[in-house]
Amino acid sequence: MRIDLNSDLGESYGSWIMGNDEQILPMVSSANIACGFHAGDPLGIFKTLKQAAKLGVTVGAHVSYPDLAGFGRRNMQLSYDELLTDVMYQISALQGLAKAAGTTVKYVKPHGALYNTIATDLQQAQAVLDAIKCLDSDLILVGLAGSPLITFAQQNGLNVVAEAFADRAYNADGSLVSRRLAGAVLHDPDFVAKRVVKMIQEGGVISIDGHFTPISAQSICLHGDTDGALSMAAAIRNALLTEGIEIRSFCEVN
Amino acid sequence: MRIDLNSDLGESYGSWIMGNDEQILPMVSSANIACGFHAGDPLGIFKTLKQAAKLGVTVGAHVSYPDLAGFGRRNMQLSYDELLTDVMYQISALQGLAKAAGTTVKYVKPHGALYNTIATDLQQAQAVLDAIKCLDSDLILVGLAGSPLITFAQQNGLNVVAEAFADRAYNADGSLVSRRLAGAVLHDPDFVAKRVVKMIQEGGVISIDGHFTPISAQSICLHGDTDGALSMAAAIRNALLTEGIEIRSFCEVN
Amino acid sequence: MRIDLNSDLGESYGSWIMGNDEQILPMVSSANIACGFHAGDPLGIFKTLKQAAKLGVTVGAHVSYPDLAGFGRRNMQLSYDELLTDVMYQISALQGLAKAAGTTVKYVKPHGALYNTIATDLQQAQAVLDAIKCLDSDLILVGLAGSPLITFAQQNGLNVVAEAFADRAYNADGSLVSRRLAGAVLHDPDFVAKRVVKMIQEGGVISIDGHFTPISAQSICLHGDTDGALSMAAAIRNALLTEGIEIRSFCEVN
Amino acid sequence: MRIDLNSDLGESYGSWIMGNDEQILPMVSSANIACGFHAGDPLGIFKTLKQAAKLGVTVGAHVSYPDLAGFGRRNMQLSYDELLTDVMYQISALQGLAKAAGTTVKYVKPHGALYNTIATDLQQAQAVLDAIKCLDSDLILVGLAGSPLITFAQQNGLNVVAEAFADRAYNADGSLVSRRLAGAVLHDPDFVAKRVVKMIQEGGVISIDGHFTPISAQSICLHGDTDGALSMAAAIRNALLTEGIEIRSFCEVN
Repeated sequence: MRIDLNSDLGESYGSWIMGNDEQILPMVSSANIACGFHAGDPLGIFKTLKQAAKLGVTVGAHVSYPDLAGFGRRNMQLSYDELLTDVMYQISALQGLAKAAGTTVKYVKPHGALYNTIATDLQQAQAVLDAIKCLDSDLILVGLAGSPLITFAQQNGLNVVAEAFADRAYNADGSLVSRRLAGAVLHDPDFVAKRVVKMIQEGGVISIDGHFTPISAQSICLHGDTDGALSMAAAIRNALLTEGIEIRSFCEVN
Repeated sequence: MRIDLNSDLGESYGSWIMGNDEQILPMVSSANIACGFHAGDPLGIFKTLKQAAKLGVTVGAHVSYPDLAGFGRRNMQLSYDELLTDVMYQISALQGLAKAAGTTVKYVKPHGALYNTIATDLQQAQAVLDAIKCLDSDLILVGLAGSPLITFAQQNGLNVVAEAFADRAYNADGSLVSRRLAGAVLHDPDFVAKRVVKMIQEGGVISIDGHFTPISAQSICLHGDTDGALSMAAAIRNALLTEGIEIRSFCEVN
Repeated sequence: MRIDLNSDLGESYGSWIMGNDEQILPMVSSANIACGFHAGDPLGIFKTLKQAAKLGVTVGAHVSYPDLAGFGRRNMQLSYDELLTDVMYQISALQGLAKAAGTTVKYVKPHGALYNTIATDLQQAQAVLDAIKCLDSDLILVGLAGSPLITFAQQNGLNVVAEAFADRAYNADGSLVSRRLAGAVLHDPDFVAKRVVKMIQEGGVISIDGHFTPISAQSICLHGDTDGALSMAAAIRNALLTEGIEIRSFCEVN
Repeated sequence: MRIDLNSDLGESYGSWIMGNDEQILPMVSSANIACGFHAGDPLGIFKTLKQAAKLGVTVGAHVSYPDLAGFGRRNMQLSYDELLTDVMYQISALQGLAKAAGTTVKYVKPHGALYNTIATDLQQAQAVLDAIKCLDSDLILVGLAGSPLITFAQQNGLNVVAEAFADRAYNADGSLVSRRLAGAVLHDPDFVAKRVVKMIQEGGVISIDGHFTPISAQSICLHGDTDGALSMAAAIRNALLTEGIEIRSFCEVN
């Protein structure tokens, strides 16, 4: 048994620090790296890429709507052409920096509002999928486990990885409980760690209203920018290793 | 005899139009394409790249300081690391878009204040040269003919192309007459066209104070964003072709 | 009989020119001036404000979502607090520049996607109305004639001016025909001029499907950034003056 | 005896946090509030203004070059007209937000590279002084104690406050020791606190090479964004109060 752990990194901007890349990077097998549209300046991105290269962590492009002030968390109605080329621009910029840092971009994970929107809005999803296909059809798309996007991307001929969230509560239909509702985010490292192990071993979680809910995921997202992120990550890693579950990038073949 | 003609393109931004890419592109052999830092949004850049690919025009990365409001024309004191990574980011973004458009970035020409600064400021020049070497040492640097940058880049092991300006007056020492002085910019298409021909045939121009001044250039820059740009470009093309001087990218080997 | 003519101005940005402020300004009684979020840099805004002051043209704040790349034409889901303070920031910036230019901001007209959204989305509308009330409750709101916003703003205690569009086709219910449909934009200056006169004299227009549709408007919007904008504006002015309809800002009493 | 304590505040941006406004504000008599060009989004600025209003802390406009990515710390060669209007725009935006927050902008303190540049570059200084005069000549300029700017601003008819730095070493000529040199920044709260008291009581400090150096300052800058900022601020406040030196804004008359 194996699982990928991913986290959002490279999200500092100029003098502003976000998260703790140096300490989170050794804990994950995949690094979703900001591309400058919601966060990430070239210098900060490059430093994180170099550390990822050194540690052998797989890197992906964390592409976003163009919205620094809103950290990419606000929906924007871009046209197909705008979204297509905005996504291509971001992936490309990261690809070059990654090459210079001694690594290679292996996947694309949309960020924030774009991530949530394309989980169900297949028109905007099409633009993201086409951006990947135009640039490099070997790039893997990481999307929300159980969402229409997963099937849609497969139908489009892309390699897809489904992702679950370690610290988010799920509804009985497999969707995430809205952050606006109480109990949406879980904070107890031990509880979260056990839940992640069960998700992998049993293929699901207990939903917020008490039902077993199937979740099929090849990657688990850890948040790196919250208080307690490091202890949460450590608890999850320990629980996985104790259970003999290997932590390894979905890109690595045996 | 042959010469390359280049022009700054892809400089529109969102709803704002700059220049006339569709009409200038067929007139040049090399297109310096904005990368988003002084001008150029991903969609506009992509459209210009596609047209360049269709016409077989060689494309280069027109990299800049990060200054949309100032169109990259204001000096900025970036650190070595900031400039290195800002330039890598821009070249990379353009490389990916170019690949998707069916072409390849062949050279790098700094824009505006960065162009002028690194002609003589070898500390900032080093950051630009290192960016090129880190990404792809086959990329050619285009710089100001006669400037210290040309020799410095060669010493750094880069391929360099020296560029002259069709419509700018020169001082006797081979430097450009400052735009703030009268007579700095030439406006008569016929006069400019004859001067370009002579520059190529005789290896120099008559300076603003009447002396023959050697200029060794493999590329001539045409401005695309001024009134009369098209008739100026047409006059130069006609004069060159009449004299049997081939218009061809410096990247093409026989 | 009197009417106000307004136009969107100050929409250049750095080296990019939009519209023709110098020639449109003498033709209107109100200038909607960009505030830097969809367009307008401080220097360009200031120049347009000074010319408006010189000509005695009333000035208003043309506030927008923060989206230079999209020219404020893309919907963005800002929170109430974000929109409230973004709008206050823009109005304030313009107020100070206006004071330095020898004039005063008299009204607020939202731009682009924000304009269209708050015509019917009363949650986002509330943020714009509250921004005005927090800053200066004497500021007039200019909104789409016939839209729910007009009544809503009045209920909120604001002074409101309803605006119609000279060159846009209307549906029978008084809404604008979507720009995506054929016939949405009218191009014949004489036809548009006669239609504007009738709108004022008869209180309505003939809708795209042939019905008389009441439109109650105190201001008419002229577009300044299209081909033919100047001749359209001249035709409308002439037709109004010929009919004895005074062109005067809605801010002027007697 | 009295002194003003100021600190840079409102420097968060969107999701990125800078400093600790809530804890620093109660410790100072003047708050230099970012205006959006180097830091500060409208919502964050507004929150800090409201807290300053509540605490009765005097507020000033912390104006900057337009450089979010560089946090306003990189020199930029703006033209006189660009700098004049950029500064007016920032002050104006803050004035409106301050009014809505129940307070008033009383002074202008340039930030970062602009602060350092205009201390000696009187051409750029002229643009800042003229911006203040065009908007509101009652606004006080805060500048570096001992710099040519102080005299120049007085000659221009402005009210000026000279500022010293609590935690920075001085050269014998009264200039600041460059941050690039060892010993430029002082870290011991007790040492710094005693030095501030002596600066006020004796009108000077001991320079880095051991000489008494006169410093005439009406305000002392505390840094809010460094580790130990709070304990440093507390030590300085305590030392001042113990010595009977009143902490009060330079704007308050008896």
